[in-house]
Amino acid sequence: MTIDALLKQLLAFRDARDWEQFHTLRNLIVSTSIEAGELLETVQWKSDADIEALLRDPAQMKNLKHECADVLMYLLLVAHTAGFDLVDAAAEKLKLNETRYPVDKARGKATKYSRL
Amino acid sequence: MTIDALLKQLLAFRDARDWEQFHTLRNLIVSTSIEAGELLETVQWKSDADIEALLRDPAQMKNLKHECADVLMYLLLVAHTAGFDLVDAAAEKLKLNETRYPVDKARGKATKYSRL
Amino acid sequence: MTIDALLKQLLAFRDARDWEQFHTLRNLIVSTSIEAGELLETVQWKSDADIEALLRDPAQMKNLKHECADVLMYLLLVAHTAGFDLVDAAAEKLKLNETRYPVDKARGKATKYSRL
Amino acid sequence: MTIDALLKQLLAFRDARDWEQFHTLRNLIVSTSIEAGELLETVQWKSDADIEALLRDPAQMKNLKHECADVLMYLLLVAHTAGFDLVDAAAEKLKLNETRYPVDKARGKATKYSRL
Repeated sequence: MTIDALLKQLLAFRDARDWEQFHTLRNLIVSTSIEAGELLETVQWKSDADIEALLRDPAQMKNLKHECADVLMYLLLVAHTAGFDLVDAAAEKLKLNETRYPVDKARGKATKYSRL
Repeated sequence: MTIDALLKQLLAFRDARDWEQFHTLRNLIVSTSIEAGELLETVQWKSDADIEALLRDPAQMKNLKHECADVLMYLLLVAHTAGFDLVDAAAEKLKLNETRYPVDKARGKATKYSRL
Repeated sequence: MTIDALLKQLLAFRDARDWEQFHTLRNLIVSTSIEAGELLETVQWKSDADIEALLRDPAQMKNLKHECADVLMYLLLVAHTAGFDLVDAAAEKLKLNETRYPVDKARGKATKYSRL
Repeated sequence: MTIDALLKQLLAFRDARDWEQFHTLRNLIVSTSIEAGELLETVQWKSDADIEALLRDPAQMKNLKHECADVLMYLLLVAHTAGFDLVDAAAEKLKLNETRYPVDKARGKATKYSRL
């Protein structure tokens, strides 16, 4: 599925339930953050070996997918509500990161990018 | 731009800097959460009127776009690293939500969905 | 109860369950962030009037207290594990904030402090 | 310093700057979450060895203390604004956890407590 088709389905889902009234920019951004916290729960208390095992466990993988899905859906609603295209925004930011973190200086160094 | 093209650029960006070594599933999920916190900063201390004004202010809008972009990019890397398609995962979750929140019961009620 | 007495009880709780092995600094910090996300859920989708009502509703107040409690307990464990006193650290930071945000410049302005 | 003395200083700091007007329960909870995200940044991209090194590095330790301090200060303001004692709430929650996670069942198992 394309991300545009997903957004269209998401808006139809929202409108069928008359939920646009709750979808202020603030509420959607707050919800994105809450869902990111739930995504973080998928690795809470896990050792590196546990995380390896998670990737081979269908139930845990399904949970991981769904938590990522929730973050993406709110993020799409944030962008839609604010009136911009999410993927284009990311492409623009990535271009900026390319100048911020030049290959010759950033190569192999985690400290060079505390942020994307 | 399509999201697949974005992911491809993102992986090229990562590999040119030899950063895959830092991109464990845990680190990427932690980074998603950190970026969601930075997104939340875009509305911190703002009144509803301030948020309206933000939408008409180019500098603030750029900042909002970039924070959303950062969350999306990490989320794409999480999905890629775990081996699934992010948009397909969201489409699957949305289908599940449709059965969880039937239109006739959820209509107009925020309390019906504490979570997507 | 004093915060030192609370910490002492918390460590006894941890040790009776043999959970210190899971309490790495990283895990405790990740858990603090997850709990802060759950705290955020207490106001998700709520209007200002809903939040007023929450303060008069015993069940919601209990929930709010417990979510704050979880954040505090992990934070205490972070500080203990890293070897510093949490309250002293806050007193030191507050002193720093006093010089960062001088009264005459910061008075009545939210924009003056994006961060504590 | 006692936590009550800290809260008193914090309220004086707030009132000297006339900031109570911004300190709605929602804003304070949102700010707690943002600061928890900043705390998470202190371990972002770090290996276990890097985190060991952080504990012996005065600059990084100071940063860690200050990020914990920010979370605590907002949490204290949340509790004060909602009208309860933060430490008493934690003591109450800890008592609840003792019944939720009985020693004989929870001993040595991380999976037994996904949440405090």
